[in-house]
Amino acid sequence: MYKGKARAYTNIALIKYWGKKDEALILPMNNSLSLTLDAFYTETTVTFDKTFAEDQFFLDDQQQSASATKKISAFLDLIRAEANCPFAALVESHNFVPTAAGLASSASGLAALAGACNEALGMALSPEALSRLARKGSGSACRSIYGGFAEWQQGTDTTSYAIQVPSNQWENDLSMIFILINDQAKEVSSRDGMRRTVETSSFYDGWLTSAAADLQTIKQAIAEQDFTALGEVAEANALKMHATTLAAQPPFTYWSPESLRAMDCVRQIRQQGLPCYFTMDAGPNVKVLCQKQDEQAILHALQSNFAQDQLVLAHAGSGLTALPVNDHATTIIKE
Amino acid sequence: MYKGKARAYTNIALIKYWGKKDEALILPMNNSLSLTLDAFYTETTVTFDKTFAEDQFFLDDQQQSASATKKISAFLDLIRAEANCPFAALVESHNFVPTAAGLASSASGLAALAGACNEALGMALSPEALSRLARKGSGSACRSIYGGFAEWQQGTDTTSYAIQVPSNQWENDLSMIFILINDQAKEVSSRDGMRRTVETSSFYDGWLTSAAADLQTIKQAIAEQDFTALGEVAEANALKMHATTLAAQPPFTYWSPESLRAMDCVRQIRQQGLPCYFTMDAGPNVKVLCQKQDEQAILHALQSNFAQDQLVLAHAGSGLTALPVNDHATTIIKE
Repeated sequence: MYKGKARAYTNIALIKYWGKKDEALILPMNNSLSLTLDAFYTETTVTFDKTFAEDQFFLDDQQQSASATKKISAFLDLIRAEANCPFAALVESHNFVPTAAGLASSASGLAALAGACNEALGMALSPEALSRLARKGSGSACRSIYGGFAEWQQGTDTTSYAIQVPSNQWENDLSMIFILINDQAKEVSSRDGMRRTVETSSFYDGWLTSAAADLQTIKQAIAEQDFTALGEVAEANALKMHATTLAAQPPFTYWSPESLRAMDCVRQIRQQGLPCYFTMDAGPNVKVLCQKQDEQAILHALQSNFAQDQLVLAHAGSGLTALPVNDHATTIIKE
Repeated sequence: MYKGKARAYTNIALIKYWGKKDEALILPMNNSLSLTLDAFYTETTVTFDKTFAEDQFFLDDQQQSASATKKISAFLDLIRAEANCPFAALVESHNFVPTAAGLASSASGLAALAGACNEALGMALSPEALSRLARKGSGSACRSIYGGFAEWQQGTDTTSYAIQVPSNQWENDLSMIFILINDQAKEVSSRDGMRRTVETSSFYDGWLTSAAADLQTIKQAIAEQDFTALGEVAEANALKMHATTLAAQPPFTYWSPESLRAMDCVRQIRQQGLPCYFTMDAGPNVKVLCQKQDEQAILHALQSNFAQDQLVLAHAGSGLTALPVNDHATTIIKE
């Protein structure tokens, strides 16, 4: 029996990943850059054992469907090939979410699984190798290997992984406030949305050109610890990502009326003198980037517009961490 | 004394005019195509008289500011040069609007003024010449010379004007429902918004390319009286126009949360089987295009989401019309 456990935090892209160059290998059309956050994380234990007949996947103590398990198995196959391990596995994951609403993410999940496998099988992978591996599970997972800022470099199958962006720990001065927008399930998954945008959006070429420029701008902002520059380019980049979907055929959007209200609210708070900027991903939630020194004032301003349980405060999270295996806490194995 | 009167209706672009190639001459970056509507119109009387010391401009019986009058004077100067008329003028306009909220438009106003001058000075201008003239007052006014569908062709100073798009009177089968969104005054005027988009938007090239393709699509749809094709391309074109503003530097939007709610509402009504499509201009109002046969059902569906006084039903409007001058009804002249 080979067993390992790891924790990984979610990350929010400030320069967005939006479109795949290769859907099978999960190679992106552009470099992206993210901040890892402590608001949401996954702890995963993996056990490989010769007595197991097939892979099993438990999330929050619930056995997952055959199709969800199949995706995990496909990822485990990569690990088994790399580590030369012939055994089926039991994967037990727990998502730690501040509220029930809408912060689930595959990024922390796949990063934690890669880390757990690395521990279980003694693979001793470098951060870059772990990042490359996590990428093949879920693209943005490759950035959750690192705390602070991470850049996912396009590359080829072997060179496409995230690296740490030097920041002199500036991320510890930053905060992110999640505004959770209650809405129906999204009509277009991020996978389908990316594909439709790449294939049909009149604005996709413009996106690629400007995302490359935005990446240079944000790296400069991080190097200079210039919050205004960081916020402006992050907000502009998110708006452009969402604008590409409006020019797809057929057009679509991840925005709900409440998302727009949240964006307006952030602009107003900013006009009143509190520096803050928003970003959004493939869903209606709005994430507000600010400096830690202003987080309480901004939270207070947001509280007059949104319910308390819609607001979640986050700070910079750690990179992938190996955890001690608790032999007695597994879900179904009797040892 | 030379006196003339005319009425012109507003028009709503289905393929948008968004950006000037020449700001002084008001030459557009792309061809646009509109539908003239009866929901809003302007009646204007113009009087040229040698006894007048200076131009005066009354709108709805209120004398207008020096700056508003100056704009009218600049337009009248073009007329005076063309008609070889040396006299100052009195301009009396009345806007006919279904409700107080937000349907004012310079298109009907400048088209009516061009028509009134044409009558007053016996210029006997062709529709194309009137359209070219109106364009120099306010770009989109050039389309209000015609009823039904009109296409504004880019061109040069002499060749940039609108022409009638043949439709076999299909416009009489169509309706437009205006959803009036109460909102603060817009922060970015359409003039400034166009300029910022042309100068800074990463997506402007993509806009120009796709607007040219959309124009061909909509002309085909009109020729074939294909409502689905017309609606789909109009809605997609409007979304692209608004997406260009999200990629400007700094980004901006004309959408309010209520605009998004209205768009969602139109999509839902459509999914329930009633064909309807939205378009939007440089403001928060949403305009719903449908077939006359469905207008009551769609109005009914909208009424459960919006107040009665937010909804205005419109049909195809006429082109520029000369009106008999009422010698005794002028605002300030005692004859």
